[in-house]
Amino acid sequence: MDDRSLLGVVRAVIGDAAVEDDCAVLPCGDWCLVLTTDMLHATTDFPEDMTDWQRGWMAGAVTLSDVASMGAEPVALLLAAGLDDPNRLGEITRGAADCCARHGGRLVGGDIDRHDELTLVSTALGRVEPANLVRRRGARPGDLVCVTGTPGRAEAGLHGYAGHRLALLEPQPRVAEGRTLGRAGATAMMDLSDGLALSLYDLAAVNACGFSLSAAALPRPSGVPEPQATELALYGGGDFELLFCCPPGTLPVSGVGATPIGTVTSGAGRVLLDGAPVERRGYEHRW
Amino acid sequence: MDDRSLLGVVRAVIGDAAVEDDCAVLPCGDWCLVLTTDMLHATTDFPEDMTDWQRGWMAGAVTLSDVASMGAEPVALLLAAGLDDPNRLGEITRGAADCCARHGGRLVGGDIDRHDELTLVSTALGRVEPANLVRRRGARPGDLVCVTGTPGRAEAGLHGYAGHRLALLEPQPRVAEGRTLGRAGATAMMDLSDGLALSLYDLAAVNACGFSLSAAALPRPSGVPEPQATELALYGGGDFELLFCCPPGTLPVSGVGATPIGTVTSGAGRVLLDGAPVERRGYEHRW
Repeated sequence: MDDRSLLGVVRAVIGDAAVEDDCAVLPCGDWCLVLTTDMLHATTDFPEDMTDWQRGWMAGAVTLSDVASMGAEPVALLLAAGLDDPNRLGEITRGAADCCARHGGRLVGGDIDRHDELTLVSTALGRVEPANLVRRRGARPGDLVCVTGTPGRAEAGLHGYAGHRLALLEPQPRVAEGRTLGRAGATAMMDLSDGLALSLYDLAAVNACGFSLSAAALPRPSGVPEPQATELALYGGGDFELLFCCPPGTLPVSGVGATPIGTVTSGAGRVLLDGAPVERRGYEHRW
Repeated sequence: MDDRSLLGVVRAVIGDAAVEDDCAVLPCGDWCLVLTTDMLHATTDFPEDMTDWQRGWMAGAVTLSDVASMGAEPVALLLAAGLDDPNRLGEITRGAADCCARHGGRLVGGDIDRHDELTLVSTALGRVEPANLVRRRGARPGDLVCVTGTPGRAEAGLHGYAGHRLALLEPQPRVAEGRTLGRAGATAMMDLSDGLALSLYDLAAVNACGFSLSAAALPRPSGVPEPQATELALYGGGDFELLFCCPPGTLPVSGVGATPIGTVTSGAGRVLLDGAPVERRGYEHRW
C-alpha cells in the first residue's frame, strides 16, 4: 500500500476537497489562511551525515514549501520534536527558527516528546489574499507548465554528485517565488517534493488534464551523465521546487527563476515527454 | 532531563513569551488565532487496550483542550499519522474527526508517514475575540483557583477503578467550558494534562504567585480510597480538565461544572494544601 491509496481512506472521512491541495485553506476575514503539517523521521527522511541544525531546517522547509505552493506568505511555524536524545533539541530548534528567519514566518511553539526514533513534525500557518491564492486545481489546456530551479538536484546530492549536496541537506523553500507567482497569475501550483513525474500525475488528476513535456526544455542537475540526469529530474524526490501552470506570456516573472517545460493538454491523465509516456513513480511511502 | 528544563532550550531560541501558554497567539484582523501541536505515540501515551478510534479521538482531544484553555473556539485540526500498519488509518482518522464533530473545529488535513511506532501528531487552530482570550498570565492574589470536573480520573481509570476507564480512553476536552469561562472573566487558565500539582506550579511561576488549597474542597475520583484518591487528584496525569483563576463571585458560571479549590496568594511559587507544601511532580517525559 502507498500514500496515495491511503489518501482515499482519509478522503472517505473528511471529503475530497480537503486532501486536494498542499495546504488546507480556511477563510479568516480578508485573508485566506493556509495550514499544513509534515512528519519527518530518522530512518526515512534524514541522510546520516546531516547536522541537527540541518534536520531542524529541513523540518521547517517542508511545510514552508507547502505554504509557498499556495501563493501564501508564512506566518507561524510549530515544531513537535520526538527526541531520542534531549541534547539534540537546541540545534534542531535553531535550524527551524533560522529557516523561518530566512524564508518567512516565525517559530512560535511546539511540543517536546521522548521518542526512540528522532521524529520531527512541523506545522506551518500562512496567509494569502483570496485573489492571489493558487490551488492545484485551475490548470487549463494551453497553459504552460513550468518548474522553478532544477528538479533532481536533491537526489543527485544523495548519489554524491558534486555541487548538489546542499540542495539535499538544506532545501530552500520557494516562498518568495510562490508569492510572486500567485500575484502574477499562476493558474495551478504545488511543490514537487515527491518528484516531478508523480507531481505531474497528481496535478493531472485534479485538473482532468494532461501534460506534454519537451525533453530539451527539462532542466537537469549539472554534472550528472545521461540517462541518469533525466531519470533524476523526472523521478528524484526531496526537491522543494514549485511546479506551476500559467497562461503563455506570463513568463518571465521578475524575481522567479523558472523554466517552461511543456504545455497543459486535454489528454486527461496523460503525461508525455517528447510524445512518450512518463512513468508514474517517484517518492512514496510504502508498507 | 525533563520537559521543563528542555523548555529552557527552546526559550533561548524563540523567546520567553512564546513558550508560556498552551497555544501560540497570533493576531488576525478582529480575531486572535491560537495554534498548538502535540505528539502522542504508542509506548508512552496509548494504553494497550485502546481502540484505534480512541487513539485518533485522543490525538484530537489533546490539542482541542489546549485551544479550550485559551478561551478560544476550535477552527481546524490537522493530523499527522506515522503508521506501523496502514490499515489503522481509517479508524484513527474517524476518531479525530468525531472528536471535532463533538467539540468543535473540523479535521481539514494532515500527513501520512510510515513509522515503526504508531505516532500521532495533531495540530489545532482556534480563534477568540481579543477580549475573551485567557492566558496563563493574569492571576491575581485574592482570585479563586478552580478546576472543571474531577482531576485524577484518568489515572484512576489506569489503575482499574470502576467508572473511570472512559475518562482515560476518551478524554473530553472542555471546549464549551473554556469558551464560557473566557467570556465570564477568568483571569488565567491552562489545562491540567500533566496533573494538577505540576500545573499549579507552572501557573504560579508565570504569575509570580502562589496557591493555598483546601483539601476539603478538592474533588477526588469516586470509589478510590484515601490516601490514593488525593494522590491521584494532585499528581495524576491524562486529565483534560481546565485549571483557572477568577475573581470571587464569578462562580457559578452557567454551563460550567467547576469547583473552587483554593485561592491565589502572593507567596511566589508556593503551592500549599491545608498549609502544607504540595510536591512539585506529575506527568513528565524524562530522558
